[in-house]
Amino acid sequence: MAGLFDKVAIIGIGHIGSSLARVIKRDGLAGSLVTLENNAAHRAKALELGIVDEATDDPAIAVTGADLVVLATPVGTYAGLAQAIAPFLKPGAILSDVGSVKMAVLRDVLPHLPDGVSFVPGHPIAGTEHSGPTAGFAELFRGRWCILTPPAGTEQSAIDKVTALWQSAGSTVEIMEASYHDRVLAITSHLPHLIAYTIVGTATDLEASLQQEVIKFSASGFRDFTRIAASDPVMWRDIFLNNREAVLDVLQRFTEDLTALQRAIRWGEGDKLEELFTRTRAIRRSIIDARQA
Amino acid sequence: MAGLFDKVAIIGIGHIGSSLARVIKRDGLAGSLVTLENNAAHRAKALELGIVDEATDDPAIAVTGADLVVLATPVGTYAGLAQAIAPFLKPGAILSDVGSVKMAVLRDVLPHLPDGVSFVPGHPIAGTEHSGPTAGFAELFRGRWCILTPPAGTEQSAIDKVTALWQSAGSTVEIMEASYHDRVLAITSHLPHLIAYTIVGTATDLEASLQQEVIKFSASGFRDFTRIAASDPVMWRDIFLNNREAVLDVLQRFTEDLTALQRAIRWGEGDKLEELFTRTRAIRRSIIDARQA
Repeated sequence: MAGLFDKVAIIGIGHIGSSLARVIKRDGLAGSLVTLENNAAHRAKALELGIVDEATDDPAIAVTGADLVVLATPVGTYAGLAQAIAPFLKPGAILSDVGSVKMAVLRDVLPHLPDGVSFVPGHPIAGTEHSGPTAGFAELFRGRWCILTPPAGTEQSAIDKVTALWQSAGSTVEIMEASYHDRVLAITSHLPHLIAYTIVGTATDLEASLQQEVIKFSASGFRDFTRIAASDPVMWRDIFLNNREAVLDVLQRFTEDLTALQRAIRWGEGDKLEELFTRTRAIRRSIIDARQA
Repeated sequence: MAGLFDKVAIIGIGHIGSSLARVIKRDGLAGSLVTLENNAAHRAKALELGIVDEATDDPAIAVTGADLVVLATPVGTYAGLAQAIAPFLKPGAILSDVGSVKMAVLRDVLPHLPDGVSFVPGHPIAGTEHSGPTAGFAELFRGRWCILTPPAGTEQSAIDKVTALWQSAGSTVEIMEASYHDRVLAITSHLPHLIAYTIVGTATDLEASLQQEVIKFSASGFRDFTRIAASDPVMWRDIFLNNREAVLDVLQRFTEDLTALQRAIRWGEGDKLEELFTRTRAIRRSIIDARQA
């Protein structure tokens, strides 16, 4: 896959962007690799780590001549960024991204896309609760899924090149409708994060003495939620604002189910509790069987 | 600590009971070790594993002559068990348990406690999502907390002996009021489990095609919840039924907080989302600092 691209521009050199940069460097996928990044400390760190050849805050310098441009900033920035880089995208270039929502990305980017440029939105199902260029690592994507949601009519050769990039990173690529992606991720990722943020927030509002005990005895279940609730605040704000319909839909289902359980506890309906708790075991088994545990 | 007890009886040889049996055997803490267990397959397995000297379904055989008896069955069974074993408890014996709720345990056990027998309720903050005697292991309690909630007036020597048992298992012992224990665990353990059960239940009600995608892409957050939601159904049914007030109280707070977040998403209030998501990061930091991560 060496020489897959002449010049790659990664917009935003945070956790995911810097991990992808490391893959591209490791596998020699690009003749040159530049990042467009507003944060001067992150630019300096990326150069110091040697994971990019060039770091700039000038869209013209970053994007001009690039045959692949990857948006790797919070999705709320995409509309402004697409507008800023559009004039410098060359014909035949591929624009891609790594955002966790996909309908909003099409909505925000497509209006700015110049003729002759292909848009292949992507979402690597990978990440940790850490942020910034030092938190990245090339192995992050190994053995994970990467979902691509190219709009109808996208050049097949562009899809193939983005697929080759993620396969080089060690991921398995799946093509999906953007709207279906957003529904699936609302339940597998967005709702779990929302709930984790909520429960940790509820705990922070407890009186101080009780809060100390919560931290002390967090290993009994709470701890698993705090890891998720330590994820990047701006990234997650943008995810919820940009997958509103799907998140509110699954949240409504969840709230109904929780209310039913609450009622079963209040009225001492042990059979209802046991029935649900038995049913949920089967899903864990399926995940283990699917080798995702 | 060798010879801490002459005869120990463990009531129920499941995940926790069998792990404690392994500790007692490993460290030679008892002259003899017997389990009272209704499940014939579990009795046979415990004997085959060599983790008990004797396995019986007869309370008289199990408890007669024991100087320590540990209840390690779902807490809903305690009242009946306490009544069944009470006639055979010798003066000076210590009764303890490993249940995840403590007020209900005092309520159910104390009325049956014979004179001259000390009750030292305990709760090792340890466990996995697995069940049964083969799932136990002696290292389960190492580096974990064990909370004891002896009622006022309990013999200090009895508290000291139960403390020595758990210290031998590698745990740090903390003495606490039963009601305070139940409030702390409601937020650190019971609410997280209830929410995990709910979200996995919500997912199982999705149409079949979508459910397959949920399993496939579970690594994006959902997976962490399924592990918790695979815990023993009867044990957890009994926990919720027996810590009702504290669970309903924290659940009410959680639901209010979740409703506020839902509203913020619906109305696009990004600043409220970002503020909460930033605040929850600090709790993770505290847990890491407390070496509980």
